Amino acid sequence: MTMGRPQPQDVSAVTCLGAGPIGAGWAAFFLATGHDVTSWVLEAEEEEKLRSLVATAWSSLEQLGTTEGASPGQLHVTTDLAAAVAGADFVQESVPEILEVKQAVYADLGRLAPPDVVLCSSTSGLSMSDIQALCPSPERTVTGHPFNPPYLMPLVEIVAGRRTDPDAVAWTAEFFRHVGKAPLVMDREVPGFIATRLQEAIWREALHMIAAGEATVEQIDTAVTNGPGPRWALMGPCMVFHVGGGEGGMAYCLEQFGPALKFPWSRLDAPELTDDLARRLIDGCDAAAPGEDFRTLSAKMNEGLVGVLKARREAGF
Amino acid sequence: MTMGRPQPQDVSAVTCLGAGPIGAGWAAFFLATGHDVTSWVLEAEEEEKLRSLVATAWSSLEQLGTTEGASPGQLHVTTDLAAAVAGADFVQESVPEILEVKQAVYADLGRLAPPDVVLCSSTSGLSMSDIQALCPSPERTVTGHPFNPPYLMPLVEIVAGRRTDPDAVAWTAEFFRHVGKAPLVMDREVPGFIATRLQEAIWREALHMIAAGEATVEQIDTAVTNGPGPRWALMGPCMVFHVGGGEGGMAYCLEQFGPALKFPWSRLDAPELTDDLARRLIDGCDAAAPGEDFRTLSAKMNEGLVGVLKARREAGF
Repeated sequence: MTMGRPQPQDVSAVTCLGAGPIGAGWAAFFLATGHDVTSWVLEAEEEEKLRSLVATAWSSLEQLGTTEGASPGQLHVTTDLAAAVAGADFVQESVPEILEVKQAVYADLGRLAPPDVVLCSSTSGLSMSDIQALCPSPERTVTGHPFNPPYLMPLVEIVAGRRTDPDAVAWTAEFFRHVGKAPLVMDREVPGFIATRLQEAIWREALHMIAAGEATVEQIDTAVTNGPGPRWALMGPCMVFHVGGGEGGMAYCLEQFGPALKFPWSRLDAPELTDDLARRLIDGCDAAAPGEDFRTLSAKMNEGLVGVLKARREAGF
Repeated sequence: MTMGRPQPQDVSAVTCLGAGPIGAGWAAFFLATGHDVTSWVLEAEEEEKLRSLVATAWSSLEQLGTTEGASPGQLHVTTDLAAAVAGADFVQESVPEILEVKQAVYADLGRLAPPDVVLCSSTSGLSMSDIQALCPSPERTVTGHPFNPPYLMPLVEIVAGRRTDPDAVAWTAEFFRHVGKAPLVMDREVPGFIATRLQEAIWREALHMIAAGEATVEQIDTAVTNGPGPRWALMGPCMVFHVGGGEGGMAYCLEQFGPALKFPWSRLDAPELTDDLARRLIDGCDAAAPGEDFRTLSAKMNEGLVGVLKARREAGF
């Protein structure tokens, strides 16, 4: 335990709020990374459910490898918020997605948590500018949105609220990187952040196809898991096209498939493929794979796909 | 070699048209499944490129496991279309995506290939109704659209043209299932089929976000590979939400997140969530996982994710 905001690598005590799958998932994750974890729950009866969720998560975490000495036994559970955060070096809040509930919790947290300690919200749909409204120390509140299950998925989307101090954002990103997550710091609050928006786009197109009788649930799922899915576990949509473009990369790809943006291949209207947008895409891919030519990237993609396909087979998919 | 259309499991000689990544990828795949493969190329000079693509594919195929006795040495290459298809039990065409080129090829194939042998097109953007227009035996022409690279990705989207015989469609699906692919038979020709439409929806939302300065190329890719990507390698968007709904499954999920369809979480307008659409989703998920409860599905998903995450790590991602 340190007073105030420690260095990200010196965080020892983590407090997790909430006994649902997200709150419990975070508790399991921080236990696996060797932290002392205190979970705050609203009602004492929630402790059993929380510990059961942590135990389930633990078997997956052990397979991926936990920090030496890490143990689910390091979990402390309390219904006393003041006691829960008194010694915290970091707080991850995962209470219900109801603005009034979150605002009330941050009003208390801002008063009870040690000064400067970062208060991080798992919110998936609310904005930190709203959540921090009643917090007496809003400058240290940050959104850190995990992807479910938080103990397995690397993504954490990090976004500031209007009154958040940029230092708190930078600290949060460094902390999550230190514990092995893939922090994604956004420049502004966008509804649904990034991952949920992309997921929602595919979901809406799927709903349209099912509603129109063009595809069934089974066909939608088969198409994704046996088509683009395994690639997206390895490279995102931009790098997939960069590699798909062969030696010419993204530039060639845009030249070849740019016109397809005019095709009715999705119900989502495409933006104009301006020179500026094309430049951002090409430069972005070059920056993402500096000095790696098509052959290297393509061989790496194939090696990854073989591993992913084998892993699927072994897990009975 | 058999005359006419053999039983799917009796196919011995496969003819692949085209020396590009798709045509060569198919050649490699059918070699790995123990077939005699003849590749037809337009110019003799293409043989070297073709063999080099097959060799690259072979190293991945070997890691996944090839049929006993399979060898890239079984590949015959010719520029003579009549000779290429004379002994074929099945033809997979992957010539350039230019309607006039495909139509001319099918005019010849319909005349030259043994009667009833299925002529299957890798087309990603054209409709079989158009491709088969000049073919003297259109009833045996079928679209079999693979996902790149065709030697690794299981998906093959199978669609009939207007004049295709339903028996040819059923035969094609059974054949691809027999060789280990995941055939997806569509009821009608939809532009972009299913996988490309879903991929295009995510791509368009990504382009909008990049154009609006809401996300960078790197952020888009990080969000997918560390968020929904690894799950989509295992379960499609519908099953992911079915499992995400906990004990209540898809029905609970629609109740909870249905209203989110009204949120501006993607630029694609959502369809109305009618009772009929909800019913199709719920029934579809139940049919996809008959008798498997939340705990079983969730444990399977986690086991798969651990494998996929380990596979990514081992491949250097």
